[in-house]
Amino acid sequence: MELYDAMSTARAIRRYRPDPVPDDVLRRCLEAATWAPSGGNRQAWRFVVLRSPEVRAVLGPAYRKGWAEMSGGYGIEGDIDPSDDSPVARMGRTMQRFVDAFEDVPVYVLFCLKGRGRTHLSEGASIYPALQNFILAARAEGLGTVVTSWFLIAEDELRQVIGIPDDWLLAALLPIGYPVGRHGPVRRRPVEEVTYRDRWDTPFP
Amino acid sequence: MELYDAMSTARAIRRYRPDPVPDDVLRRCLEAATWAPSGGNRQAWRFVVLRSPEVRAVLGPAYRKGWAEMSGGYGIEGDIDPSDDSPVARMGRTMQRFVDAFEDVPVYVLFCLKGRGRTHLSEGASIYPALQNFILAARAEGLGTVVTSWFLIAEDELRQVIGIPDDWLLAALLPIGYPVGRHGPVRRRPVEEVTYRDRWDTPFP
Repeated sequence: MELYDAMSTARAIRRYRPDPVPDDVLRRCLEAATWAPSGGNRQAWRFVVLRSPEVRAVLGPAYRKGWAEMSGGYGIEGDIDPSDDSPVARMGRTMQRFVDAFEDVPVYVLFCLKGRGRTHLSEGASIYPALQNFILAARAEGLGTVVTSWFLIAEDELRQVIGIPDDWLLAALLPIGYPVGRHGPVRRRPVEEVTYRDRWDTPFP
Repeated sequence: MELYDAMSTARAIRRYRPDPVPDDVLRRCLEAATWAPSGGNRQAWRFVVLRSPEVRAVLGPAYRKGWAEMSGGYGIEGDIDPSDDSPVARMGRTMQRFVDAFEDVPVYVLFCLKGRGRTHLSEGASIYPALQNFILAARAEGLGTVVTSWFLIAEDELRQVIGIPDDWLLAALLPIGYPVGRHGPVRRRPVEEVTYRDRWDTPFP
């Protein structure tokens, strides 16, 4: 797949068909992840492919709790009127369906980074480029995914059920599957709104 | 350019030809950066294209100090024997040349993220995917770059000369130019060394 086509259509996908994701397809995405840069090329990362019932039983409740706690911040209060067709209501229904079926996601990949405690922002430069490579490869392979972090709500349980050592950090979890519906263009602010030249407020170009 | 070809050949490039980098080429890389995901699709990022003599005068000394402080950790002690052809000596010469000529890099892009103080690792998921999209686009455009963070050594001066508000974080600086020499394959550990299944030590696949 052409690079710019992959990047511009790698939208967040939260509905997956039940079809399993073959290991050889996942492996191509994981190899793409390993091609990313990291500080001093240390590659202090580990990717854990998750499908076990024990892991699913930890993730489902955590993600439902995550959405219950965050939905207010997205403008959702209580039950959504089924006749409400506003963007907020549609997003709310998508999120509710996503977390309600979280145990049924075909496969998840957990991205881990060696380190402990609170980190400097710049340490993220050693794991999130790998995450983005995976996302783009998944797009090229016809898979859908979305970056999530609500596993942090059940971090201790997740560490226990997977057996993650204390000197590793949990960076992100990607739920992955073949999408219901289609990939589509990302929606973003224009370059000119977020790019400046030499000084904080001098327009580019 | 094909996605996997771009990813697998986006090596760190530290030597640039003096040719200027046109704004329209940079703009395509910046647009690719905006296509990345971010938490809640908030896109709380800002990219500052840097070429001013004032900024160069801050960056050069910071990067030379960065290398002087870090070279010991890479196994370099004092001057490198010109006849030493070991990988460490060659890397040391590349790094020394890189920081010695840091003011002469054709253009730099600083990646900023809204936020302040110490952050959770997961906040990096809202800026480093954009960094990686930029890097891949730069590769496709024939440009070379490398992720750097030694600007943090002169963070206060850099904030002042650019005019960066206190509620924005500095995530990474990319020096950018057309490479001396060629792009080449990245060198990474094999997937099997860094991927596991369900449990921390259970091999994948």
